[in-house]
Amino acid sequence: MRAQSKAVVLLSGGMDSCVTAAIANQTHSLALLHASYGQRTEERERRAFEKIADFYGVREKLVVRFDSLAQIGGSALTDSDIAVPENLPDNSATIPITYVPFRNAHFLSAAVSWAEVIGATAVFIGAVFEDSSGYPDCRPEYYETFAQLIRVGTRPETQIEIVTPVIHMHKSEIVRKGAELGAPLGLTWSCYQSDDEACGVCDSCRLRLRAFSQAGHADPIAYKAQVAP
Amino acid sequence: MRAQSKAVVLLSGGMDSCVTAAIANQTHSLALLHASYGQRTEERERRAFEKIADFYGVREKLVVRFDSLAQIGGSALTDSDIAVPENLPDNSATIPITYVPFRNAHFLSAAVSWAEVIGATAVFIGAVFEDSSGYPDCRPEYYETFAQLIRVGTRPETQIEIVTPVIHMHKSEIVRKGAELGAPLGLTWSCYQSDDEACGVCDSCRLRLRAFSQAGHADPIAYKAQVAP
Repeated sequence: MRAQSKAVVLLSGGMDSCVTAAIANQTHSLALLHASYGQRTEERERRAFEKIADFYGVREKLVVRFDSLAQIGGSALTDSDIAVPENLPDNSATIPITYVPFRNAHFLSAAVSWAEVIGATAVFIGAVFEDSSGYPDCRPEYYETFAQLIRVGTRPETQIEIVTPVIHMHKSEIVRKGAELGAPLGLTWSCYQSDDEACGVCDSCRLRLRAFSQAGHADPIAYKAQVAP
Repeated sequence: MRAQSKAVVLLSGGMDSCVTAAIANQTHSLALLHASYGQRTEERERRAFEKIADFYGVREKLVVRFDSLAQIGGSALTDSDIAVPENLPDNSATIPITYVPFRNAHFLSAAVSWAEVIGATAVFIGAVFEDSSGYPDCRPEYYETFAQLIRVGTRPETQIEIVTPVIHMHKSEIVRKGAELGAPLGLTWSCYQSDDEACGVCDSCRLRLRAFSQAGHADPIAYKAQVAP
C-alpha cells in the first residue's frame, strides 16, 4: 500500500471545516491546524477542534494564536463593542459586520508555512461561497490567487495545492455530505456568540439550522432558542 | 494643504525597511507595523523599530507577535538548532537556511488587515530582489500576486496598493538613498545572531557591510568583527 500524502486541514471546529476534514481524510493523512484570534467563542471552538481531531485519531496538530486579528479589531467577531447581528445575511453586496478584515490570508499563510516545513502537499480549507455570509475571502478566485501566491512565494521544489472541496456546495449539501462520510457533526460548533449552548439566533446559528432543515436531518447539538428557519 | 493619505509600513528595524519608511514618509502619513516571530534578535530588532518610529514622530504603531512562525520553525532564524551561516549568499538557485517558510505572507496579511481597518491606502514593504539572499518571497511577481489577492479578498470599496520601493535597488543604492533622505541608518539593526554588537560575519552583516563599502559611506553602527567585503 502506498503511503498517503499529507494534507494540512484548517479546522475551526465548525461544520464546514469538519466536513472538509472528512473529505480530506479519504485521500490524505491529516495534519490539523486550528486558529484562535480572540473571537468571542474562542475556547469553545478550540474544544470542538480537539474533539474532532480525537475522532479522526490525528496526532499532528497545531494551535496558533493570531494576536494581530484581536489587536486590529474591526469586526463583530473580534471586537466586543460591535454587536453580532441576529438576522440572516441578505445576500446583497453588503459585507457583514462579522467579516474579519483579510482573515483567511492569516490562516492560509500559517497553513502554507507549516505545510512547507512538514512536507504536506495540500492545504484544505472549508470556505463556502454559495450561501455563505458574503465574505470576500470566501470566493473561488481568492483561492486561485492564493495558489498562485504559493507557487511564486515558496521554495522551487515545494508543491502545495489549495483545496476548497465545499466551496460550491450549499450548506444543506454540506450537511448531507457530512452525514454520508460519517463526519462527527455533533462535535462541531458554529455559534458566534455563546459558548455553553448555541444561541440559535446569530447569523451562523441560523445558517446552520436552515441547512439541517433543508437537508432533512436533525441537528445533533442543543440550542437555547430557535426561530423558524 | 491636502491631508496626506496614510500608509502602513512594515518596519523590521533593518536598513531596507528604514529606507522604505523614509521613502513612504515623502508622500504618506505613516503607520508602522513591526513583526516579532521568535527570531534570534527579536528584542534588538524591536528596539530599533521603536527608535526609528520615534525619529519619524510616528504614534500609530502596531507590534505583532507571530507565534506561528516560532512554533513552525524550519529556519535558522527561528530554530536555535539550525546554525546561522557565516558566508555570503552565493546567488545560486539554492534557498538559504535563513529562509523562513512563506514568512512575508504573514506580515503582509497583518499589514493589509490593519490598513483596511485604519483606512490606509498603501502597504510599503522593503523587500529587496536584486542582491538579496534569494528568498522566494522577495520577488517582484510575489508582490504583484499579493496585490491581486488584496483586490479579490477585501471589501469592494477597499483600495490598498502594495509598494516595494527598494525591490530593484542594489544594497549600495539603498544606503545612498537612505543618506540622501536623511534616514536614521545608525538606528537600524541587521545582524541575524547577536543583539548587543553586530557580529559582522553572518549573511546579513556581510551584505550590509559590503553595501556601505560600495556606496562609499561609513556604516554608523559598531561591529564585533569584520572580514574584508
